[in-house]
Amino acid sequence: MSSSLNRRYRHGEWPQGAPWNEIIESLLQHTSVRSYLDKPLPEGTLHTLLAAAQSAATSSNLQAWSLLAIEDPARKARLAELAGNQAHIRQAPLFLVWLADLSRIDRQAQRQDIELGAPAYLDSLLVSSIDAALAAQNAVVALESLGLGSVYIGALRNNLAAVIDELQLPPLVFPVFGLCVGYADPTRQAAVKPRLPQQVVLHRETYGQPVEQQLVDDYDQHIAAFYREQGLSTPSWSQQAVERLRSIHTLNGREHISAVLKDQRFEQK
Amino acid sequence: MSSSLNRRYRHGEWPQGAPWNEIIESLLQHTSVRSYLDKPLPEGTLHTLLAAAQSAATSSNLQAWSLLAIEDPARKARLAELAGNQAHIRQAPLFLVWLADLSRIDRQAQRQDIELGAPAYLDSLLVSSIDAALAAQNAVVALESLGLGSVYIGALRNNLAAVIDELQLPPLVFPVFGLCVGYADPTRQAAVKPRLPQQVVLHRETYGQPVEQQLVDDYDQHIAAFYREQGLSTPSWSQQAVERLRSIHTLNGREHISAVLKDQRFEQK
Repeated sequence: MSSSLNRRYRHGEWPQGAPWNEIIESLLQHTSVRSYLDKPLPEGTLHTLLAAAQSAATSSNLQAWSLLAIEDPARKARLAELAGNQAHIRQAPLFLVWLADLSRIDRQAQRQDIELGAPAYLDSLLVSSIDAALAAQNAVVALESLGLGSVYIGALRNNLAAVIDELQLPPLVFPVFGLCVGYADPTRQAAVKPRLPQQVVLHRETYGQPVEQQLVDDYDQHIAAFYREQGLSTPSWSQQAVERLRSIHTLNGREHISAVLKDQRFEQK
Repeated sequence: MSSSLNRRYRHGEWPQGAPWNEIIESLLQHTSVRSYLDKPLPEGTLHTLLAAAQSAATSSNLQAWSLLAIEDPARKARLAELAGNQAHIRQAPLFLVWLADLSRIDRQAQRQDIELGAPAYLDSLLVSSIDAALAAQNAVVALESLGLGSVYIGALRNNLAAVIDELQLPPLVFPVFGLCVGYADPTRQAAVKPRLPQQVVLHRETYGQPVEQQLVDDYDQHIAAFYREQGLSTPSWSQQAVERLRSIHTLNGREHISAVLKDQRFEQK
């Protein structure tokens, strides 16, 4: 317990007697995997991950998401190129695309001769995207429990129209993010990344940030040490995060997603 | 394994030898809890859940989310009323609000005399909302492993402006959903809810729905049987889902969230 907390927060203070167990310990061990072995997944893995994913909560039992499993090397290569040339998309034996999907319910509505009004509203985009995210995270917990590794690919939204085209997605389907799945290359395994102190993230009763800056400064030290240990020259968290959100250029094409989603009939009213 | 799959899918077909373990078994057991005992949580539970939540992946390590923990009975009562009068929000000892939060990075930008351009785009709303969802789902896995129960409260968006006011949220902070946490009342525990067959949710290489309708019809039978067993008169999935997305009236106020989010400086360009 204390060693996994130390890796995650790089400090030793923790309330005595806080509950702990092996599942929580394994959640704390999470790292993103960006180098995979050339080794196939055990037979049936996809079905097990999907069962875990479908067991997550879903808004009003709408189940407003679908899963697209990609194993074809040529398609993975094309998607890798569209998603910021990330080599691990090619390398991973399985690439999962998590889809916000209102089209399944729309097909049922057509059958009942009903035109759906709600999908045109922003809330429906959120409901379906959040459904997809909750499902995906359950799959990540499941795959890590099986000794597999993964990394989310938000850059799937960099060239959203081209990805929709490649995957032949109908209206009311949106590829929220990708997920590479495979066996981590143990020689290139990243360490657990430290996170912001809990006091920065946690608010009680209402929102307030009385002591934030000192704690962010401390974290900037911890994360800089982490990146040095990993042989990276990444700047501090506060510099990196500001840089990432600085301008339209750092969106890498994602400034277009609102328009592309409107073409997909997610009108965002 | 076969009994938990039977509960989740109400059929017995499954690829032989698919990988399985206790963690996956516990994910399959998930149910939403809407009746809680009047029993406090073990000391330190919140810190354990937050450590699990912070261990989830986060886009570009932005950590663009925060957690608001609410225990004050008067505030829980006000939030319950704003969120469709859900009594379990009052009943649960802990009510968590998962916040999409770009304000923390914005404060760092202000310190560096930089004006952030990206938060005005829809992608930033998605990045921060998805960050919050991945974190929340890890917390749900953790709390269930501790014998606790929970239920997501999407209805926190029904009266979004009033909730933002109640929680004193600054610009660039958005309450994505709530989560009730507590000990389930064992006398009112819901059973595992069946989900759509995997073949309906899973696509391979590209999107297609060749055999969907027969499988949806089968599922409508399974879910109707489930609701009867629970003493509920809920209609079939296809009717219920269509009804839920039918019109602006079934959005219960969420037709306003785009405008309210613009007021919060999530401009959704």
